[in-house]
Amino acid sequence: MVRPALIGFAWSCIIIRMTVKAAVAGATGYAGGELLRLLLAHPDVEIGALTAASSAGTSLGQHQPHLGPLADRLVQETTPETLAGHDVVFLALPHGHSADIAAQLGSDTLVIDLGADHRLVNAADWERWYGGEHAGTWPYGLPELPGGREALRGTKRVAVPGCFPTGGSLALAPAFAAGLVRPEATIVSVTGTSGAGKSLKPHLLGSEVMGSASAYGVGGAHRHTPEFAQNLSAVAGRPVTVSFTPVLAPMPRGILTTATAPLAGDATPHAVRSVYEKAYGDEPFVSVLPEGTWPTTAATVGSNMVLLQVAVDADAGRLVVVAAIDNLTKGTAGAAVQSMNIALDLPETTGLPMTGVAP
Amino acid sequence: MVRPALIGFAWSCIIIRMTVKAAVAGATGYAGGELLRLLLAHPDVEIGALTAASSAGTSLGQHQPHLGPLADRLVQETTPETLAGHDVVFLALPHGHSADIAAQLGSDTLVIDLGADHRLVNAADWERWYGGEHAGTWPYGLPELPGGREALRGTKRVAVPGCFPTGGSLALAPAFAAGLVRPEATIVSVTGTSGAGKSLKPHLLGSEVMGSASAYGVGGAHRHTPEFAQNLSAVAGRPVTVSFTPVLAPMPRGILTTATAPLAGDATPHAVRSVYEKAYGDEPFVSVLPEGTWPTTAATVGSNMVLLQVAVDADAGRLVVVAAIDNLTKGTAGAAVQSMNIALDLPETTGLPMTGVAP
Amino acid sequence: MVRPALIGFAWSCIIIRMTVKAAVAGATGYAGGELLRLLLAHPDVEIGALTAASSAGTSLGQHQPHLGPLADRLVQETTPETLAGHDVVFLALPHGHSADIAAQLGSDTLVIDLGADHRLVNAADWERWYGGEHAGTWPYGLPELPGGREALRGTKRVAVPGCFPTGGSLALAPAFAAGLVRPEATIVSVTGTSGAGKSLKPHLLGSEVMGSASAYGVGGAHRHTPEFAQNLSAVAGRPVTVSFTPVLAPMPRGILTTATAPLAGDATPHAVRSVYEKAYGDEPFVSVLPEGTWPTTAATVGSNMVLLQVAVDADAGRLVVVAAIDNLTKGTAGAAVQSMNIALDLPETTGLPMTGVAP
Amino acid sequence: MVRPALIGFAWSCIIIRMTVKAAVAGATGYAGGELLRLLLAHPDVEIGALTAASSAGTSLGQHQPHLGPLADRLVQETTPETLAGHDVVFLALPHGHSADIAAQLGSDTLVIDLGADHRLVNAADWERWYGGEHAGTWPYGLPELPGGREALRGTKRVAVPGCFPTGGSLALAPAFAAGLVRPEATIVSVTGTSGAGKSLKPHLLGSEVMGSASAYGVGGAHRHTPEFAQNLSAVAGRPVTVSFTPVLAPMPRGILTTATAPLAGDATPHAVRSVYEKAYGDEPFVSVLPEGTWPTTAATVGSNMVLLQVAVDADAGRLVVVAAIDNLTKGTAGAAVQSMNIALDLPETTGLPMTGVAP
Repeated sequence: MVRPALIGFAWSCIIIRMTVKAAVAGATGYAGGELLRLLLAHPDVEIGALTAASSAGTSLGQHQPHLGPLADRLVQETTPETLAGHDVVFLALPHGHSADIAAQLGSDTLVIDLGADHRLVNAADWERWYGGEHAGTWPYGLPELPGGREALRGTKRVAVPGCFPTGGSLALAPAFAAGLVRPEATIVSVTGTSGAGKSLKPHLLGSEVMGSASAYGVGGAHRHTPEFAQNLSAVAGRPVTVSFTPVLAPMPRGILTTATAPLAGDATPHAVRSVYEKAYGDEPFVSVLPEGTWPTTAATVGSNMVLLQVAVDADAGRLVVVAAIDNLTKGTAGAAVQSMNIALDLPETTGLPMTGVAP
Repeated sequence: MVRPALIGFAWSCIIIRMTVKAAVAGATGYAGGELLRLLLAHPDVEIGALTAASSAGTSLGQHQPHLGPLADRLVQETTPETLAGHDVVFLALPHGHSADIAAQLGSDTLVIDLGADHRLVNAADWERWYGGEHAGTWPYGLPELPGGREALRGTKRVAVPGCFPTGGSLALAPAFAAGLVRPEATIVSVTGTSGAGKSLKPHLLGSEVMGSASAYGVGGAHRHTPEFAQNLSAVAGRPVTVSFTPVLAPMPRGILTTATAPLAGDATPHAVRSVYEKAYGDEPFVSVLPEGTWPTTAATVGSNMVLLQVAVDADAGRLVVVAAIDNLTKGTAGAAVQSMNIALDLPETTGLPMTGVAP
Repeated sequence: MVRPALIGFAWSCIIIRMTVKAAVAGATGYAGGELLRLLLAHPDVEIGALTAASSAGTSLGQHQPHLGPLADRLVQETTPETLAGHDVVFLALPHGHSADIAAQLGSDTLVIDLGADHRLVNAADWERWYGGEHAGTWPYGLPELPGGREALRGTKRVAVPGCFPTGGSLALAPAFAAGLVRPEATIVSVTGTSGAGKSLKPHLLGSEVMGSASAYGVGGAHRHTPEFAQNLSAVAGRPVTVSFTPVLAPMPRGILTTATAPLAGDATPHAVRSVYEKAYGDEPFVSVLPEGTWPTTAATVGSNMVLLQVAVDADAGRLVVVAAIDNLTKGTAGAAVQSMNIALDLPETTGLPMTGVAP
Repeated sequence: MVRPALIGFAWSCIIIRMTVKAAVAGATGYAGGELLRLLLAHPDVEIGALTAASSAGTSLGQHQPHLGPLADRLVQETTPETLAGHDVVFLALPHGHSADIAAQLGSDTLVIDLGADHRLVNAADWERWYGGEHAGTWPYGLPELPGGREALRGTKRVAVPGCFPTGGSLALAPAFAAGLVRPEATIVSVTGTSGAGKSLKPHLLGSEVMGSASAYGVGGAHRHTPEFAQNLSAVAGRPVTVSFTPVLAPMPRGILTTATAPLAGDATPHAVRSVYEKAYGDEPFVSVLPEGTWPTTAATVGSNMVLLQVAVDADAGRLVVVAAIDNLTKGTAGAAVQSMNIALDLPETTGLPMTGVAP
């Protein structure tokens, strides 16, 4: 939306303005659509090739009616050729496809994988949860984790976190880092439907979803479970077990995560709070809300924000942290753009909404 | 809805048919409305006085547009006089009002309290969570708990369980009874908005609720927490701590509860499953779903059913149980009617839907 | 839900109780599911064969999780053999399939077609709107239209109306019958998603539907348009043109129809009102609401009711009528059961809910 | 979101960059919140005073949790003093309050009234529909109407259109201007709940709204009716009657308008289409969609776009136009910012999203 305003000053600004040419593979899906919405508003990005699989040859407008400015753009096939010649290539593809494509794009191209291929460090975990051979591990696109930002500076490869581990890991990381809790996390995340993508499955029909809540991947079956454990164990410096349950709720976007762990000692609410405020005080996209205010996913819709609130349950001896994000923005496409900004040494917040669209 | 079909045979059946005259205090609210919907379909009940507070003097149709057959019924004030002369009096009132009214109705009237006044055994708990003096404890209307049914036979006083403890207690009771888990429950319940009633609060506006999920009463602040602990401790035979978090989701009805606890030993999924099938095999309103099938709240809408599924998370060493109910039916009004049936020695399932209204 | 209560009196009632054995073809869809929900509560019906196409061989529970009592019933293939030996056969099939099956079921079987095959009188209309050869016309299952009830008495064939023409025709019929309006109807119906069935189409995904309203079949393209015109022309006694626009809204059930036509003279609101009250005063399933009260679809969910309200717009010179129904109940399955009751000379309201499930 | 990216170049751009200081009265409501969301992204605006009535003294974060960057801003009382010293003052107030405040702000301040006070030309209409004395007429903030843009250039007073007349007027204006239709419009608009604001009314509770559609203000009772007639009569050059029915649907945002009128002659679909493409071909915020594509409100969420599609119903002899907008953006706050841009001779699209947030 910004361009019109800038045009008027182009002659004075253009000389100091670098422009990054970006391609999006998987442009017709929800993650790809959100990515394009953000890139259209990014002052330093020029949108290049838009590619997909079965929809190649159609116009983007047929798939992303909300992206008017790109309605007439042709969707090309996802190949090394169509993706060549870009500074940045975003891969919003089913897992298993990224490694080959990345290999052919060359090491000077910034490749940002929104899929799962390069998130896990442990090959055995990969094979157990996803099957097939592990494609290797790339720098992890969650700069708010300890050391996360540094790992992304100047990198040419980024693995964007899963939508669930984003909120859940940030919800508990400070507590584990400070040794406030025992290494047994119990996490329940209520999610909107867009996380499941556009796949035509009966349980994703509007008639089935509206007015209904349902759990899935229960008992540790969800593929994000090892990613949670990897993140929290790294922060804790020892193995952390994670019981994770996702719950599908009748909303298109948003994840509300309730993350709890047993208190290691008798930390006061005040002490816990100061740990979190210290951990995130300088983070532009993480907000520890004022006491008494609880996060809502609505407040994060379309924004790159993580809204957090903490509580100490003295009776149950547990820390309870609630985190709200937009699964498509901070949970996917926003994290990708944020990682791109860091990798390219652009101001980290460039082109990323800090305000939600509510109500 | 049944009456018309019966009328034709009245002359032959009436002689063996007892009719119970029932009054509903709080007839204009959501709990009262659901109760009346069920009572209209109950072949043994005649609906008597309908009472409320501020709406006294209006017609029920203004408050319950879905209850056509009662549209012209006058709403009276809630007083011992208007409630006198009934076999059963249902109290769907804010907490703190039931004890006085019940005292004046006499010990031969079956009084069923849908509020919280008489659920808790421990007076200190009552004072801490609700404030004021404890009104005493009545038989608890959850027949599916061990000994629950017996406690209700022939009683003249019933305390209907809270909507959250209904599903959550039934989800974990068999595991605690069988000693499968350690006494530390972590429960997250996703609920529809009707549980909050018709109170005009900004966060309950449609614009705020739709497209949003939010937690409340976090960290043990919700009043149902001690009720959970009371139920589970009684079944476990020792104190059980409960970390409970309710999450408001954009649906009018339904509660999906994810209840977990650390496994005490290395119980196999098969062993856990058989414990639950044994516990609930004869229960008309509890269904342990086939393996691989997970409960949805949509399947319970308007019904008195509890849908359950169990999982063992070996990595995290936890039992995870998911339960779905309709908060207004099994969670409130259905439990009240079920308790009435038992107390009056009517067939327990009389007038209670076993089918949901879906999609 | 009624059976348990009846069992106790069976010995006294059974002798005067006829039981109808009913088969449902298309038992795994939304219409079939709603039909089964109603038939389970119908005291005079025994549910026989449940059939479908691709799902043959599976259990009904996999398709209709809300119908617990039928969860273990096997779904058979839809053939004349599986449907033979029933008093009533309900056909909830895609259009084009009913005629052949009905022909093989014999003229003594009551065949109730929930599809479109036999609704239209004019073969040319059929060929234009549906294509292929017209299968003929059956008595139309909308007893509330002038002469509608008589046409159904004792019939062995019933064409259940389309969901849109049900509310829209009843909304305007009295005005046309009384000559209050000119023969140009403009009808806009806001519908829930279940009317589109379980077909896996991208625009029916929850992510697409929630938070969105969209029109379709605009400009007279919707197949229900000629059915509207047929009903209203018959009542008016002259050709009525119908501009019909359906709008998809984010709800699983319900149709809210706004039906307008130019006033022929200067009818007063009072005169219009009395015409409608006279037309529907004796109808058990049509309720002309009190002045100032407007219908909501929520009040009709799961019920067989039509809620109506009328207004006269003197400035625009138009009559405006608003009608609310549940598209699956009165709009489909309820109309089928109501027609069955009439055809079999059972009390018309038997087994049909007059109360909605709200909120 | 843009500022961070600009900061880096501020030293080079600032000299050619004017900044407008804007105050928002009614900052705690939905219209005020949307306005602030847009102004935060407007490169030429500095947000000044935020005022309200009862919430004065609180922080904005308590009312607009999605506007993080303004969370700590104090809400002041709405007085001429607090609003003084701004270049632009936006009034998002209940009707009846704007005239007095505007009078005290002086004629050099650009006052943009999001309320109804200054929309109507005819004082008698005002008195009939709103009551009280007419405050006068201001330039109307719908630049896409014939002559609309010119009327706004350099003005110091703007009356922002009502949310319904925005989409409905643009849907029919070209047809009336071209004489394609007779002067009898029938308009049905399906709207989200945010149009009703944050007022605590029972029918706006989430439990009432979700899963339900309902009409209101039927028969010409809605206050936007005369505004429709004023706009369309002006374009048609003769009196146009308007039958308008709003329908409340379960979504927070969006208006889908179905606007129809009888065809004056036998215009072909192609002819109608070219009239619309010619009328809106150069409009940045109005998109006549490709043939066969129908608007959805979801595609407009958070954007300033109007999505249109036209159809000719030859059987009914009617033109049918469907328009989708976001009631809070193009329907209210976006129109206000667009009008400000024109009035201040800024590029008209500055700070206004052309992409929606979907799904």
